[in-house]
Amino acid sequence: MDDDLCTRPATELAALVRDREVSARELVDAHLDRIERLNPALNAIVTLDAEGARAEADAADARLAAGEPVGPLHGLPIAHKDTHATGGMRTTWGSPLHADTVPAHDELVVARLRAAGAIRLGKTNVPEFAAGSHTFNTLFGATHNPYRHGLSAGGSSGGAAAALAAGLVPIAEGSDMGGSLRNPAAFCNVVGLRPTPGRVPTHPAAIGWSQLSVQGPMGRTVADVALGLSALAGPDPRVPISLGDPGAPFAAPLPTELTGLRVAWAPTLGGRVPVDPAITAVLEASLGVFTDLGATVEEDCPDLTGADEAFGVLRAWLFEASYGDLVRRNPDRVKETIRWNAARGAELTGADVGRAEVAHTALYERVVAFFDRFDVLLAPTTQVLPFPVEQEYPTSVGDVEFDDYLGWMRSCTLVSATGCPALSVPGGFTPDGLPVGLQVVAAPRADRRVLEVGHAFEQATGFGRRRPDLG
Amino acid sequence: MDDDLCTRPATELAALVRDREVSARELVDAHLDRIERLNPALNAIVTLDAEGARAEADAADARLAAGEPVGPLHGLPIAHKDTHATGGMRTTWGSPLHADTVPAHDELVVARLRAAGAIRLGKTNVPEFAAGSHTFNTLFGATHNPYRHGLSAGGSSGGAAAALAAGLVPIAEGSDMGGSLRNPAAFCNVVGLRPTPGRVPTHPAAIGWSQLSVQGPMGRTVADVALGLSALAGPDPRVPISLGDPGAPFAAPLPTELTGLRVAWAPTLGGRVPVDPAITAVLEASLGVFTDLGATVEEDCPDLTGADEAFGVLRAWLFEASYGDLVRRNPDRVKETIRWNAARGAELTGADVGRAEVAHTALYERVVAFFDRFDVLLAPTTQVLPFPVEQEYPTSVGDVEFDDYLGWMRSCTLVSATGCPALSVPGGFTPDGLPVGLQVVAAPRADRRVLEVGHAFEQATGFGRRRPDLG
Repeated sequence: MDDDLCTRPATELAALVRDREVSARELVDAHLDRIERLNPALNAIVTLDAEGARAEADAADARLAAGEPVGPLHGLPIAHKDTHATGGMRTTWGSPLHADTVPAHDELVVARLRAAGAIRLGKTNVPEFAAGSHTFNTLFGATHNPYRHGLSAGGSSGGAAAALAAGLVPIAEGSDMGGSLRNPAAFCNVVGLRPTPGRVPTHPAAIGWSQLSVQGPMGRTVADVALGLSALAGPDPRVPISLGDPGAPFAAPLPTELTGLRVAWAPTLGGRVPVDPAITAVLEASLGVFTDLGATVEEDCPDLTGADEAFGVLRAWLFEASYGDLVRRNPDRVKETIRWNAARGAELTGADVGRAEVAHTALYERVVAFFDRFDVLLAPTTQVLPFPVEQEYPTSVGDVEFDDYLGWMRSCTLVSATGCPALSVPGGFTPDGLPVGLQVVAAPRADRRVLEVGHAFEQATGFGRRRPDLG
Repeated sequence: MDDDLCTRPATELAALVRDREVSARELVDAHLDRIERLNPALNAIVTLDAEGARAEADAADARLAAGEPVGPLHGLPIAHKDTHATGGMRTTWGSPLHADTVPAHDELVVARLRAAGAIRLGKTNVPEFAAGSHTFNTLFGATHNPYRHGLSAGGSSGGAAAALAAGLVPIAEGSDMGGSLRNPAAFCNVVGLRPTPGRVPTHPAAIGWSQLSVQGPMGRTVADVALGLSALAGPDPRVPISLGDPGAPFAAPLPTELTGLRVAWAPTLGGRVPVDPAITAVLEASLGVFTDLGATVEEDCPDLTGADEAFGVLRAWLFEASYGDLVRRNPDRVKETIRWNAARGAELTGADVGRAEVAHTALYERVVAFFDRFDVLLAPTTQVLPFPVEQEYPTSVGDVEFDDYLGWMRSCTLVSATGCPALSVPGGFTPDGLPVGLQVVAAPRADRRVLEVGHAFEQATGFGRRRPDLG
């Protein structure tokens, strides 16, 4: 019974709590038991407050018993990404510089989830300052893939993805600059949504207008991700880029057919990214599902000229603005890839940043025009399969060497540069059982569209229901 | 009769045309006659297509006669700012480099006004590339103030403001980076709205996410500006920062009382800007109107720390990105202040731009918090009164010398940096008859609020109805 509670969709669990068939306390206890059993091998959750969670759960049950109004996530256990500030709970950003930092307040993404009724269990593991798509740091070590111990869970929301896949939490949140909600979803056979910038307002943010890093929901099903988005989306007056639409409608039921949908399939993003042939094979075997659901599928891709420049320059610039001083003060206490990023940022001229923004603008326009012809773009979420946790990052795929440590992440970073919402859904398994993610991309602000398409695909294929064998 | 048609509000003229009491052709002819008489001394309109306008007017009348649906500006003559591309009509940007440029297409702001039914008469004068708040250039010379020949009409939308004040057009549009919709409105006793960035989508734009330069409506009354905004506002999928709300509701009737409104009055923007005492005296004499209308008025101002850095750096950066190459290729054919701006931009590091954006973000947050305590902020639109057209820019006010050529515009540039909508409404006259503008500022996205407050003030004071004596 307990383990069953830990593998059901968040939407079902929320209904069970609301209908008082299961208490929040039972849910929390079941998840705490499972964390105790499974987390030591996975290392997905790095801070745990069992007593606090039980007290919160009891209070949630009391509110429900008293007939008070409750939020859409009422009673659902959650663990927050450890780069998201939690009031009164240690938040390390994966960095030894913050080993003992206890923020005074929840940041907005955390506050919204808690206001919606989620019960805080603890924090999920991250790479230092969420940099890079493999979750390891000197404080807590690496997070393991629930589908194969010893392999990466991806990142930077790798603790969240592994926790979801292993049934340690029913819903989670992460952030995504260059794939951090999508890559770990793909590696762990769960669902991650990079929303349109401004859909989920980020506060505080160093640069309120930046389009690169966004926050968003993760779940085991697309409907769970939609439920999470309903709690996270909606404007905040302090966030200048926040989109005006309210969040609640994102939780509306999703369709299961795709009649008339125009699908573009871009197996290499127009020849721009090398992809492991094992990944391409898995995804191409699944494409027929779209035709079965009523869609038309064509191989096509927007012209992504300028996407590398926009992403590379603006990322380095943002690192310099956010972490430049910190890196210079503590060169020995940050990992080499962050020093490299900040150093690149420090070398930039204003004109370099201007040219990148001009390229970024032209890219946006071309991509918007592409989505006049297609409703969604499909691509592999990742270029590589989960790799050994000891490896900091993959340096090649097949016989193609990557230029730098961002090279293996370009199937996500190029999409980040477009400003489009992008969902990673389970896309199938390799013959030896490793999960593969399918990236569903739609026009800017069409977040609902990627959820609809992802849901229909998920329902038709059932890949997401193949849970890892955790003994 | 003809001159009466040329001084009535656009809202009334639009109704007369819609009700077929006046034809679009009559309106156009009346305005062309008046332009012929008055424009030579004012130099507000620098390109005129009388035949094209008459043909468009006839077509507009035919559509109305045929019972076809018509837009909210149907039959209203308009002249577009000469920095806005007009398809098939010369667009010079006030620069000899574009003396003979004829764009192929209307840019979005022009296309929206024409789609709403406005009839294109021609183009209004601008400073080179809209840089600076005084309208002069080597192609056409300076625009004169309708209230006193020989004095500046302000800028950069100076041709538009002078044309409105003189009854050469009933409605106009402009753009505003550092006050270009507000300063000329103040100098010419008309109304100019700097909308929230994204309220009126700009397309094309070099950098789609820039918050500095916006486009917006001008008119002789606040209701006319609201009518113009109703045609200009609303999202465009190609513009990433466009706000989602539709435009039409902005044309709804505006209230004439302000019961309970919390007004902050900032005569020097918190001690940051020197202001001509003659301007302060005029505005302070008008403040009682707000109390009479039911508002409470307190002297207060948000903390504008960082506004100069944000505006100065981001303006120079945008100039470099937009005009850097052009200035370097043609150093002798652009004015010194633009060379100065682009040179400042070329010296910037990426880190400088990053620090400016961080300051910009902190400023935004403080200003949003300020508007929890107040509904609107009032300030002088300009620090100086209209000055001789021969002077490129004022270098002092009283015994305070300005640091650079932007110094005299800071009552507007500091507000631009906040991201707030700001309206300049007629605020009264000096004893010797020069107009003074009152700047009405509200929280980001509260564009409707500044229109409401401006309208109530305008109705109570009648300053806008004091038209210039043009013989």
